[in-house]
Amino acid sequence: MAQPSRVVAFLSDFGSRDPYVAIVKAVIEKISAGKVRVIDISHDVPGFSVVAGAYVLYTSYRYFPRGTVFLVVIDPGVGTERRALAVRTSNYYFVGPDNGVLYPAITEDGVVEARVISNEAVFLKPVSKSFHGRDVFGPAAALLALGVPLEALGPRIEPEKLVRLELRKRCEEETVEAMVVYVDHFGNAALGLDKECLEKLCQRGSIVAETRGRHYKAKCLPVFSVAEKGELVFYLNSLGFPELAVNLGSAAQLLGIGIGDVVRLYPA
Amino acid sequence: MAQPSRVVAFLSDFGSRDPYVAIVKAVIEKISAGKVRVIDISHDVPGFSVVAGAYVLYTSYRYFPRGTVFLVVIDPGVGTERRALAVRTSNYYFVGPDNGVLYPAITEDGVVEARVISNEAVFLKPVSKSFHGRDVFGPAAALLALGVPLEALGPRIEPEKLVRLELRKRCEEETVEAMVVYVDHFGNAALGLDKECLEKLCQRGSIVAETRGRHYKAKCLPVFSVAEKGELVFYLNSLGFPELAVNLGSAAQLLGIGIGDVVRLYPA
Amino acid sequence: MAQPSRVVAFLSDFGSRDPYVAIVKAVIEKISAGKVRVIDISHDVPGFSVVAGAYVLYTSYRYFPRGTVFLVVIDPGVGTERRALAVRTSNYYFVGPDNGVLYPAITEDGVVEARVISNEAVFLKPVSKSFHGRDVFGPAAALLALGVPLEALGPRIEPEKLVRLELRKRCEEETVEAMVVYVDHFGNAALGLDKECLEKLCQRGSIVAETRGRHYKAKCLPVFSVAEKGELVFYLNSLGFPELAVNLGSAAQLLGIGIGDVVRLYPA
Repeated sequence: MAQPSRVVAFLSDFGSRDPYVAIVKAVIEKISAGKVRVIDISHDVPGFSVVAGAYVLYTSYRYFPRGTVFLVVIDPGVGTERRALAVRTSNYYFVGPDNGVLYPAITEDGVVEARVISNEAVFLKPVSKSFHGRDVFGPAAALLALGVPLEALGPRIEPEKLVRLELRKRCEEETVEAMVVYVDHFGNAALGLDKECLEKLCQRGSIVAETRGRHYKAKCLPVFSVAEKGELVFYLNSLGFPELAVNLGSAAQLLGIGIGDVVRLYPA
Repeated sequence: MAQPSRVVAFLSDFGSRDPYVAIVKAVIEKISAGKVRVIDISHDVPGFSVVAGAYVLYTSYRYFPRGTVFLVVIDPGVGTERRALAVRTSNYYFVGPDNGVLYPAITEDGVVEARVISNEAVFLKPVSKSFHGRDVFGPAAALLALGVPLEALGPRIEPEKLVRLELRKRCEEETVEAMVVYVDHFGNAALGLDKECLEKLCQRGSIVAETRGRHYKAKCLPVFSVAEKGELVFYLNSLGFPELAVNLGSAAQLLGIGIGDVVRLYPA
Repeated sequence: MAQPSRVVAFLSDFGSRDPYVAIVKAVIEKISAGKVRVIDISHDVPGFSVVAGAYVLYTSYRYFPRGTVFLVVIDPGVGTERRALAVRTSNYYFVGPDNGVLYPAITEDGVVEARVISNEAVFLKPVSKSFHGRDVFGPAAALLALGVPLEALGPRIEPEKLVRLELRKRCEEETVEAMVVYVDHFGNAALGLDKECLEKLCQRGSIVAETRGRHYKAKCLPVFSVAEKGELVFYLNSLGFPELAVNLGSAAQLLGIGIGDVVRLYPA
């Protein structure tokens, strides 16, 4: 069992220009008397996108030291009846809403125990209706990082009852409909597919990406920087997802796609 | 009297992509030999907006531990004759220009002592004409966080002489002209009104927001996430300000308003 | 010889909204067991701009304490044959690709020893083709900050063999063609010129800036905030570069210029 590391890794869609992130950090600083350090994952996950948040968490959590507490506040349902979760996995702790955003990461690492955060002694009071990052999730993460046991936060919940979210699908056929699960700031579009899809789709060295009735040919390459400038490339990105990219350009712009859009792919 | 906590909370409009923030942090790191930690509040306060900076500081300072030193560099008057201030309040320390940006926070917490930063021994020399964050405010904040007494920075100034800025007004009549004091990255528009205005304006369950000759009906609700998608909502935000919001959308975009604009509100 | 300070100053074009920055920080945290602190310089250097990265590094490194390890990942050539460098200078350590981004800073501080990072024991494996910040540069910076000697990273390379990049040029004539080396978030455009150019060009109190066939008159002033609102100003910025700025406005927008563009300047 991983001891908490006194590090909170913080992921949200609060935006880095608003006061929300700082307020959560201040709460953690105050509760922990400066003993817990916060490492930002990102606060600019596209607003309300649970899929993008799940992708960012899933692709980054494994690089953190054992015992890291992940605080994830991508929470379009704040103020409604969605559950607040604290989860212990084989190597880490996770705190966030039960909307699927934690699901790919905790499932891969292996859920040991999941709890619903409901013990009012944990909360910063009065609990607001729209800022549970400050009032519920932040305090819970700070306490876990300080070594407070998971059971202090609330009752156990069976892992099967958690809201599910699958980031990847298998390629059974020659043609696959892939969801764009992330677009990074270069405009590279990660697709919700297994690694193995790449080999299957790339058997002839190129693929066709079809979206909104338009067709784009993409070359299968090991890395986008070896392509010509402006060329569309299909490759396995450094985080393990098949991705469409344009060398020194933006694939998302070229294809007119964003997170949540679907692209049809088949060998060229 | 609050002992300084060795934490500097840093708010500016320097932008997070330029080197300015890092340079100020480097100066603090060097002066304090690594003993002072910096927590970012935000560096993307809309350029030159003293009102927005005052809002962000006022709504976040109270969550920080006692003794935190707030370093605030929103300073459109840099290079002119405006004063540089260091202020001790009941629970905190504040460093920044005398342009009103500190005013709502220090007034609420209670000014104990205010000083004009003018002791040249404090400055990083040569003092530039346009980067007092690096040369004046940063060093002053680092020294305060290390425990240097306020009187070492310069002469006392009477609190009544400070530049004033009021973020909120009362609602005396049924109709009120409210200034937009902040727009967050969701597009929620916070209004410079007392909390009590909400009750007064919402007596019939809805309000009209009028701007540029157009009228918008907004429902009074406890939280925006319970509204229909796209619906305009008027509610008390989690930081204690009456706010216009659109569930899963942008109120600022819908109404075409930004920080500093005035909206007329009355019961529907 | 400067002892490493256990501080890594991190500059990249990874964007602050994507998971890349956090992954590199996680790797450093893991390798150093929390003993190395990371200070962000910026992660929003305009994509692939080696010149802008070189400017940000060159203008900020000198403010950091001796022994700081600079981790610079602006690396459009990742996946190609460009070298990975670790450099010790008179006061600091630098890690980054050999594409010129380190050149102005290390040359000014004085190269003591340069090494090609090639010792596979340093790498996070398997080494990806497109994320050397995580697999090569991040681990190397963490190890240097922990006190691992430079020679452990790989073979020596002669400083003369490094890729060169000059940020500034001299003004020999009355007319000079200046490259825009940086545009900050205010829209101020820094020019790749020596400080001395200012005096030369400003002998009559104003200059003409010519770009794309259009001519703009700019007043020579000590600081932009003393200009009229909207007025174009030519002055020495706080980082030591001649700069075009508009008080309370954007010079880059007014002139339609960006990083890498050339502006012709001469006395008015």
